[in-house]
Amino acid sequence: MTVHPMTSEALSDEVVASVGNAPARTREVLQALLRHLHAFAAEVNLTTAEWEAGIDFLTRAGHITDDERQEFILLSDVLGLSMQVVGLNAAEDPRATESTVFGPFFVEKTPHVGLGDDIAAGAPGEPCWIDGTVTDVHGAPIAGARVDIWETDGDGVYDVQYGDSRTAARGYLVTGDDGRYAFWSLRPVAYSIPADGPVGDLLSATGRRTMRPAHVHLRVTADGYRQLVTHVFDRTDPYIAEDAVFGVKESLIVDFEPQSPGTGPGGRELDSTWYRVSYDLVLADA
Amino acid sequence: MTVHPMTSEALSDEVVASVGNAPARTREVLQALLRHLHAFAAEVNLTTAEWEAGIDFLTRAGHITDDERQEFILLSDVLGLSMQVVGLNAAEDPRATESTVFGPFFVEKTPHVGLGDDIAAGAPGEPCWIDGTVTDVHGAPIAGARVDIWETDGDGVYDVQYGDSRTAARGYLVTGDDGRYAFWSLRPVAYSIPADGPVGDLLSATGRRTMRPAHVHLRVTADGYRQLVTHVFDRTDPYIAEDAVFGVKESLIVDFEPQSPGTGPGGRELDSTWYRVSYDLVLADA
Repeated sequence: MTVHPMTSEALSDEVVASVGNAPARTREVLQALLRHLHAFAAEVNLTTAEWEAGIDFLTRAGHITDDERQEFILLSDVLGLSMQVVGLNAAEDPRATESTVFGPFFVEKTPHVGLGDDIAAGAPGEPCWIDGTVTDVHGAPIAGARVDIWETDGDGVYDVQYGDSRTAARGYLVTGDDGRYAFWSLRPVAYSIPADGPVGDLLSATGRRTMRPAHVHLRVTADGYRQLVTHVFDRTDPYIAEDAVFGVKESLIVDFEPQSPGTGPGGRELDSTWYRVSYDLVLADA
Repeated sequence: MTVHPMTSEALSDEVVASVGNAPARTREVLQALLRHLHAFAAEVNLTTAEWEAGIDFLTRAGHITDDERQEFILLSDVLGLSMQVVGLNAAEDPRATESTVFGPFFVEKTPHVGLGDDIAAGAPGEPCWIDGTVTDVHGAPIAGARVDIWETDGDGVYDVQYGDSRTAARGYLVTGDDGRYAFWSLRPVAYSIPADGPVGDLLSATGRRTMRPAHVHLRVTADGYRQLVTHVFDRTDPYIAEDAVFGVKESLIVDFEPQSPGTGPGGRELDSTWYRVSYDLVLADA
């Protein structure tokens, strides 16, 4: 190091060199990060006030983040970084179901439900039956796969946003020998990502919408296979082409088919319109 | 937007375009940030685990940050971003005193002291008299300039790190008609930046030291002049050439001259070695 960095480039070089003794991968990631960070600041001639605004933004994001709200994941999502990472880490096998963003609303502790059970837990919304088979890339069913499901209720609110400790429209099941999964939940609706924090301010300042098209989150894990984190999206959603987090992929768009009142799967009696979706989930080899 | 970003570049372009309607400067800054952020991720093939580590890092930084600790400023400092911004925003007038990092330990609410007063407030350390004149770039004294001072005590600890509400080695004074400033405080010592949080972990993971060479922080504000944020550094400090935050500049290195016990400025009686520094502070025009 020197005591007199004279130019933006010299300082940048000095900082990059400062992590030169880190383990190889740490060094590679950090040196690239540092080069881009310094180049960004120099390129836009970042002002002190803008730097302060950045510090303030991160501080506010940190303070609004707690066990049930993750503003940094939300930030990564709206900046498209999450989808960039999804793409970079995607299964190379084109037969596998495509991935999309994990999002900030997953909860590790979630109820275990049986095949065909209703995970809505009394939350408002239109009933929806979702089923399919978890298979490998050759179409062979995967028994014992864990399928995690989470989605908003019919008002566009996740249970963790209720402000109490209720669980709703969330749970996991395990596939049987035939690889089949099935559950009752709710037809998803479009909703605004949390817009009362710094990420909402950022979207507002840039004239961007905060809406996500209706979707159901799915995470599938099974021994010997790559974990799949994905959604199924509602084809009819008006926001399908302008997801605030850039998560929509053509192969994940499905039909939520309206059904007349009457007896549904599992003998459930329905006195209003309900929906059904069938979607197979294909896991790549680990 | 599209529903099917196929490549890393296509996704990056889509995200960059999404802020295309922001006001001009916001757009310029954010589009550069987004291009560098996405290029960084693609360049290193960022893994999901590394992305998660990044989210976790920011979350921890947010949670350790409070009114008296600012981990994001510390992060910016150790990544050299703070010095980059200092450089980009420096006064163009080479006659002005050079700037350096603001650091995370400034406190807005600070005691007003008279010229020649002692700001040490009983904190441990070797007495030190610091004086000089605040002038414009032509050498004319600036009356009524506010000089904020903050530094660690002789144990290398800032008052805000004591864990109680004591103020020590911190205060501000206002120059008289002759532009002169003077105060008693403590000889600064080298210290470790706070290393018990994520920034400390980052430095540890990269084999970097956490030390800063001994310095006194100064901020000078006066109507009609550019604000100056700087330090004076102790020339004899062993860490002078390896400041953890890249803040040292040759012109800010001064001599803390040891003085024999006896009567010091203001008639203070000293029974042990004390130090003195004279350093003029030159403000650029606003």
